[in-house]
Amino acid sequence: MVLLIHHPVSAASRKIRLLMSEKKMLFILKEEEPWKLSEDVYKLNPAGELPVFLNDGNTIVGNYAISEYLEETSKDISLIFGDARQKAEIRRLTDWFDQKFQREVYRNIVQEKVHKRFATGKAPDSQVLKIGLNNLLFHLEYIEWLLERKQYLAADTISMADLSAVAQLSIIDYLGGIPCEDFKTAKLWYSKIKSRPSFKDILKDSIRGILPAKHYADLDF
Amino acid sequence: MVLLIHHPVSAASRKIRLLMSEKKMLFILKEEEPWKLSEDVYKLNPAGELPVFLNDGNTIVGNYAISEYLEETSKDISLIFGDARQKAEIRRLTDWFDQKFQREVYRNIVQEKVHKRFATGKAPDSQVLKIGLNNLLFHLEYIEWLLERKQYLAADTISMADLSAVAQLSIIDYLGGIPCEDFKTAKLWYSKIKSRPSFKDILKDSIRGILPAKHYADLDF
Repeated sequence: MVLLIHHPVSAASRKIRLLMSEKKMLFILKEEEPWKLSEDVYKLNPAGELPVFLNDGNTIVGNYAISEYLEETSKDISLIFGDARQKAEIRRLTDWFDQKFQREVYRNIVQEKVHKRFATGKAPDSQVLKIGLNNLLFHLEYIEWLLERKQYLAADTISMADLSAVAQLSIIDYLGGIPCEDFKTAKLWYSKIKSRPSFKDILKDSIRGILPAKHYADLDF
Repeated sequence: MVLLIHHPVSAASRKIRLLMSEKKMLFILKEEEPWKLSEDVYKLNPAGELPVFLNDGNTIVGNYAISEYLEETSKDISLIFGDARQKAEIRRLTDWFDQKFQREVYRNIVQEKVHKRFATGKAPDSQVLKIGLNNLLFHLEYIEWLLERKQYLAADTISMADLSAVAQLSIIDYLGGIPCEDFKTAKLWYSKIKSRPSFKDILKDSIRGILPAKHYADLDF
């Protein structure tokens, strides 16, 4: 049985949970707070990052290593598919959300609102939140642009890129921060993914001390 | 023929050049300054990042997508090898350098010294450089720890993890910033990689307006 050390506010953890659920894998979860990781987590992952994947004494850590490991060891349902060029497009957009969106949006909104509060007790800086929100609008426009060309972000079926994107977006959604009314196509795409069985557990997530936005578990957004 | 749009100060560009040379691929280079990218690069890569890989009308962008694409399409010489567990270790350490080292060291030293100067004309902030240097010492210690266990960072032969590491380190080395005397094992490992044919062109690199440190092209460091 797989054990995943995770946290609901960690986007990489959400992505790996979604990936394992899409692959119909069974797993159990153990929660660790990213702003107060235990020594045990540092022993398993010296980078001090979530999630940590444990299976029969096999420890795999880090978003990149775990995703590719799961693609390789559990091939029946693939989230990086097609020819080499198609795979490159899936990986390009996976990286877009894992790195660029994370740096420009997640850090300015989620880390500012959640991590900062629990790590330092300080209130979020409204200037930082504003930068995050502006960047979010740019990314939502890019999502709309992509969805005008394909059914999902990188292909006509769901791929790793969509999982990376919704892993981040669903945390911002929990905090009530997605201005979805102006982005109808993106909203429809997000609702469609929210309705998948793999998303069921994510909708039950709860971040200690922070109630989810009213519509968070609402399938039509 | 492959065309790689790159810059000598971009670690991801250096890594892909090393990777293609290790795979004995032929390619030509076109230079673009990261702090002043042309519209053409943004059209090819909306993320506005180097390198960009072009081959017969096929455009692949981003460190992650290009590396995995090259591993998949040019399998004779592999830099992510072994069983799934071994590959996960290679990818964990590749990510360590591509992300963690980049954030903690490269950004504070190279971006502070080079990008800032060319983008804004400002001098580097000595506090930021100091943080970068302190972080570099921590990473060199980790490299030594890894090299006590294996011949190279992730295995007993050279892997993608080593390319990611030396891509970053060689830029800092060009700027004269590696305190190598205290890290004998890391120094030996770096010299060994510097002597490989794949490194030959890297040693001829020149960053406009900045002379390389005296020992930069010196094979015994």
